Amino acid sequence: MQQNLKVYNSLSGSKEKFQPLNPPYVGMYVCGPTVYSDVHLGNLRSFLSFDIIYRYLMHLGYKVRYVRNITDVGHLENDADEGEDKIAKKAKLENLEPMEIVHRYTQGFHQVTRVFNMQEPSIEPSASGHIIEQIALVSKILEAGLAYEINGSVYFDVLKYNEQAHYGALSGRVLDDLISGTRDLDGQDEKRSPLDFALWKKAAPSHIMRWPSPWSDGFPGWHLECSTMSTKYLGKKFDIHGGGIDLKFPHHECEIAQCVAGYGESPAKYWMHANMLTINGQKMSKSLGNSILPRQLFSGDHQLLDRPYSPMTVRFFMLQTHYRSTLDISNEALTAAAKGYKKLANGLRILKRLQYQENGQTAIDEKINQQIGQFCDNCYHAMNDDFNTAKTIAHLFNILKKINSIHTGSLDISQLSPETFDRMKSVFLDFVENVLGLEEERPGQLDPLLDIVLSSYKEAKSLQDYQKVDDIRDQLKKQGIVLKDMKTGVDWAYEE
Amino acid sequence: MQQNLKVYNSLSGSKEKFQPLNPPYVGMYVCGPTVYSDVHLGNLRSFLSFDIIYRYLMHLGYKVRYVRNITDVGHLENDADEGEDKIAKKAKLENLEPMEIVHRYTQGFHQVTRVFNMQEPSIEPSASGHIIEQIALVSKILEAGLAYEINGSVYFDVLKYNEQAHYGALSGRVLDDLISGTRDLDGQDEKRSPLDFALWKKAAPSHIMRWPSPWSDGFPGWHLECSTMSTKYLGKKFDIHGGGIDLKFPHHECEIAQCVAGYGESPAKYWMHANMLTINGQKMSKSLGNSILPRQLFSGDHQLLDRPYSPMTVRFFMLQTHYRSTLDISNEALTAAAKGYKKLANGLRILKRLQYQENGQTAIDEKINQQIGQFCDNCYHAMNDDFNTAKTIAHLFNILKKINSIHTGSLDISQLSPETFDRMKSVFLDFVENVLGLEEERPGQLDPLLDIVLSSYKEAKSLQDYQKVDDIRDQLKKQGIVLKDMKTGVDWAYEE
Repeated sequence: MQQNLKVYNSLSGSKEKFQPLNPPYVGMYVCGPTVYSDVHLGNLRSFLSFDIIYRYLMHLGYKVRYVRNITDVGHLENDADEGEDKIAKKAKLENLEPMEIVHRYTQGFHQVTRVFNMQEPSIEPSASGHIIEQIALVSKILEAGLAYEINGSVYFDVLKYNEQAHYGALSGRVLDDLISGTRDLDGQDEKRSPLDFALWKKAAPSHIMRWPSPWSDGFPGWHLECSTMSTKYLGKKFDIHGGGIDLKFPHHECEIAQCVAGYGESPAKYWMHANMLTINGQKMSKSLGNSILPRQLFSGDHQLLDRPYSPMTVRFFMLQTHYRSTLDISNEALTAAAKGYKKLANGLRILKRLQYQENGQTAIDEKINQQIGQFCDNCYHAMNDDFNTAKTIAHLFNILKKINSIHTGSLDISQLSPETFDRMKSVFLDFVENVLGLEEERPGQLDPLLDIVLSSYKEAKSLQDYQKVDDIRDQLKKQGIVLKDMKTGVDWAYEE
Repeated sequence: MQQNLKVYNSLSGSKEKFQPLNPPYVGMYVCGPTVYSDVHLGNLRSFLSFDIIYRYLMHLGYKVRYVRNITDVGHLENDADEGEDKIAKKAKLENLEPMEIVHRYTQGFHQVTRVFNMQEPSIEPSASGHIIEQIALVSKILEAGLAYEINGSVYFDVLKYNEQAHYGALSGRVLDDLISGTRDLDGQDEKRSPLDFALWKKAAPSHIMRWPSPWSDGFPGWHLECSTMSTKYLGKKFDIHGGGIDLKFPHHECEIAQCVAGYGESPAKYWMHANMLTINGQKMSKSLGNSILPRQLFSGDHQLLDRPYSPMTVRFFMLQTHYRSTLDISNEALTAAAKGYKKLANGLRILKRLQYQENGQTAIDEKINQQIGQFCDNCYHAMNDDFNTAKTIAHLFNILKKINSIHTGSLDISQLSPETFDRMKSVFLDFVENVLGLEEERPGQLDPLLDIVLSSYKEAKSLQDYQKVDDIRDQLKKQGIVLKDMKTGVDWAYEE
């Protein structure tokens, strides 16, 4: 199926056949968090999108080196190279060493990625850990004549760069529009053009995070780290560069400019951008004050939330929309997702216990076999179509219907051929658990105690003690478990 | 209680009153893992010892900045500055980028610390992230004339240093003995003396992990990172430097020499060393091939283990011995620890639900109140005596006896004064949960289902259905839970 994968490349603005530079190896770099506060759901969606891309590429057999960085220095409060370093500011507010802030929120970020069942990247480099490499790239850009030093700071010369390359290649921004859109430089600004951006900033005397460099004791510009770390670990030219769509300009545009200026090569073959999470139609962001933190979702403790939602519910909710579409969060959608996720989880439980058996009487039903085969193919088609998880989930629900029919007895398992059954099982399990990363939220250790409860339930039923039957049903329901009286006996399921 | 804490200082070889440089702040640096393989139990014991020290200092009200590093470069296979970098070698064997090795085993290490309920350090700096700072320290030592460059490498000049300071101050090693104990230098060696150690090593052409420096493209010596990172985050002079006892020489001795040579100051006021874990009387180490990994403990899958042991069992086992004594691991000792831990965990469960009540008839028993007060004081005395967790646990078991007596009814809670009860409760909970870090291993969500099982059990009992009573008991026992018929009704406990 590898040969059929298409990805939307932001650079060309179209879906392209995915052809890695050195198959079966794939190098993927994704812009990670700036660790000065808790990661909010908007960030999470972006990381989740690339988690899916990583998982599916591996499912297709690619050997992926996935690099996701930690921005722990140099990210100023606005993109105009002014204001304080976000981490240093937070450290000052909380009266801590900046690296304490970094450690706290890096751990918090890791915890969130674990809770949401995201795969670890292969390497997680930090900006502060690559100052030497960043200084080396600044030197290269200076040598190329595409940056200038002033008062100990170094700026990228966008206009000069644009004479020999194309600034705007990724974002489609037009230089003249950008210039007319900026305010005039006042006399205080060191930059030649308002479009220029910092490669190295001289640190004010009070600035804590600083390193020696040929130009000043200072710190690297924000865009620089990604150009440095992506190429250090993936080579000057690699396959995929990803991030949230808000990073497309200026961050990614500047990354390309830096790499072209310093290394003579545009770094990534495919640029991929995850779209925004909106809430009531507005972008979710810390600065707008409408952001929801993962822990608020789990507790339901947020003015915009009616009730708590579990990690897998949120994961499922996000995957119901393609990563390039905006996704609006609402209680209605989350509640529906909770139901949908539990349906899938129940399907997993049922399917794992299903054993194929021929009964020697029932004939194999070609039409049903064909149909199931088509559903399985469709899962691949949807994912191959630029990782369309929304469509994939719809196809999985078609398979689920068959699983449930077998479970309830309305479809006889021996109407399926053994091959169809095996394929259905492996595709459903692989896609739900490995590709979409949806796992059962109940710990398995619940089952032994449940068995005891179930035997009490069965006994009460056989004794026609309906008071007790109802009691047990009610108590289990409080735990999110419903009992089902099947032909084959009593079974339990997650309440959907 | 702060003023009574005594710590054993390896530097003086005696217990000293603990007087931090800038109370209530305490700076503590602990040598972390070299992330080229899974952490084994011997490493774990060392990190656990400092976890206890960190927890108790905070319990006493100190504001602790706890720095524990990650060694991700420069740790050669032997201390004689020869052989390959451990991480680069592993990377070559597994055909990975060294930083992939680093990320994998750093994550593995973090997972182990979480499973064993260790507190996060405040900062976790990595050697590769502080190359600039390490180069700066090498320059300072060169300026001081206490190092020399040869063929692009820089070595610390131990003999010259010893003319003006004392090499051996920490370890008590005598220079003449050290010299006579080393082999002659062959002509190939660049060092002036076999005691000299590398500050910077020129990288061979095939060496992947390399950085530019004034002397060569190369990498820092292993000892250098800790001198650099401890002082960067805690100041030139800080309170506590800790590590496993095997690091005392040469690693910590070299750290002191580097700091004195470069900064003119011995870095730490108190040096603390955790003793070894032995197995059948032998040191546990990767090179001896007798090491046990945490996951092997949990599965029981190791030739030296009779059965699996849980994380809290192992934590309890290690705390039963003072950190400065060697600790020999055996199935007998682990099995006894499993019982002991469960006794404490049952005490926690009981105590949390105990409510004080006066009954108006029983008089307060002064002797028992005094006794309980003494047990509580003893917990502090033991911890204040160089963090003696072994004695602390013995005192907690004395308190536990009283808790159990109240629970079984042989001691009437109203024989205690309300103040005694409150103190007993807060000391027991604080010491077990916060200071020793022992937590209940059963997730709380088990209780609701247990309630259903318990009501079936009670009903069976009242109906004198002893077959069913036994069935439920047996099934719960398989889950490690025993039922207790109390005067007050049926209760459950972890099987001890």
